[in-house]
Amino acid sequence: MKGTKKILIEQIKEGVIQKMEDQVVMEYPLTIYLNDEEFITLLCSPNSTENLKYLALGFLISEGMIVKKSDVGKVTIEEEAGHIHIQLNNKIDLKQKLYGKRTVTTGCGKGTVFYNVLDSLGSKKIMGDILYDYEHILKLSKELNQQSGLFKETGGVHFCALCDQEKVLFFHEDIGRHNALDKIIGEAFSKEVDLKDKILVTSGRLSSEMIIKAAKKAIPVVVSRSAPTELSVNIAKDLDITLIGFARGNRMNIYHGSKRVRVKTL
Amino acid sequence: MKGTKKILIEQIKEGVIQKMEDQVVMEYPLTIYLNDEEFITLLCSPNSTENLKYLALGFLISEGMIVKKSDVGKVTIEEEAGHIHIQLNNKIDLKQKLYGKRTVTTGCGKGTVFYNVLDSLGSKKIMGDILYDYEHILKLSKELNQQSGLFKETGGVHFCALCDQEKVLFFHEDIGRHNALDKIIGEAFSKEVDLKDKILVTSGRLSSEMIIKAAKKAIPVVVSRSAPTELSVNIAKDLDITLIGFARGNRMNIYHGSKRVRVKTL
Repeated sequence: MKGTKKILIEQIKEGVIQKMEDQVVMEYPLTIYLNDEEFITLLCSPNSTENLKYLALGFLISEGMIVKKSDVGKVTIEEEAGHIHIQLNNKIDLKQKLYGKRTVTTGCGKGTVFYNVLDSLGSKKIMGDILYDYEHILKLSKELNQQSGLFKETGGVHFCALCDQEKVLFFHEDIGRHNALDKIIGEAFSKEVDLKDKILVTSGRLSSEMIIKAAKKAIPVVVSRSAPTELSVNIAKDLDITLIGFARGNRMNIYHGSKRVRVKTL
Repeated sequence: MKGTKKILIEQIKEGVIQKMEDQVVMEYPLTIYLNDEEFITLLCSPNSTENLKYLALGFLISEGMIVKKSDVGKVTIEEEAGHIHIQLNNKIDLKQKLYGKRTVTTGCGKGTVFYNVLDSLGSKKIMGDILYDYEHILKLSKELNQQSGLFKETGGVHFCALCDQEKVLFFHEDIGRHNALDKIIGEAFSKEVDLKDKILVTSGRLSSEMIIKAAKKAIPVVVSRSAPTELSVNIAKDLDITLIGFARGNRMNIYHGSKRVRVKTL
């Protein structure tokens, strides 16, 4: 499985039509089965078996279906069929989860949030006394944007990266930016990496659901080269998350939480 | 209600931090009640009461909940609360619709598709003998991208426009590109405009769900300045939809259906 495919297209350029090869990004349906019951289908970028597993786990974490490693039993992937079977050890009422409150978000990748968003987060402030140099943040944003291969090839993919004060820990791309974030969350879950002092860098727009996914894992700093929405800014303020947009070149906009950003004094 | 809001931010530029005003795009939760029962919450751009109505109707059309005008009874909007109440005259089993097959898409704006996508469309080829000049298409793409006000201000909004061989008929912007398309579909429904010979121009990426929404309304030509996914290209081929990406400057990529594009012979 790979993320892009070469196809034959016709291009019109300055009034002349000609056949040529073009590279398009794949969109892959992954159906999650929980305890042998069909749960949901995600449309995502296929890249590796491991990443599909991270995606499914991250999605379940974001939806509050699993909390700790012991909640998850056997995981089996049938790549050709696009199925992932996950055995859950925790007793959850799937029907209850499925039929609960649903919000269709604006975001790429994860439309359905089963939680009642603001209610469940309202009281849970992000702690994180961590401090990040603004130059480190800009460097990460620049390097990650350069690194984002799929995006450059096909113009249709977003990335998310989990970083610390020194380096990039995890990096994922997906046609859905929420998928990319769920892959990060799933990988951190699998590798038991704590997110409470990390920084999340993404290429995508910071809609409320991105912030909420980050907040649920207590990620204290969220950075994008794109714009946040006003609702995201409000959530960041409520939960005291450092929210940075338009991190490009030598500038960034801090929408909340500049206390976690160290500016070199000249 | 307006689509953007001015807020106070801190900007770091070349190592200097300063407070400044910034404009951010709004994200507005609109909860749809069908026959007094809560159905779903969409996160969208607020702009006008009329547009919220178009969005809700377009969403219900895309989800197959309503087909004809007589299916819809009274529509009441409570803007402050973010509620829209729609009375349906057709007998549909809401629970059945809610609990049916669900796919979480990659797209911005509409995550949940209750239909089993390809099955339901597989046999329904788009007819449309319509022919569009490639220069008209490029002109539309260029003008609409210039016109897109919210996007330019805040960097976080996509547009969809419905056009004919002469002009732009409907134009909508939203933080969710699927919302923008549902607004188009809802407006066409309300004004009883047939979509079968029209052209859809959008700023957003052409993921499978955008094509499927267009296909359900038999729109024969879909154009974007962004990239399609491979699944979109396959659907366009299956249903014989003209799919054009990267319509920028003096060029465009035709992924399928160049027969509906007239190239001036030199």
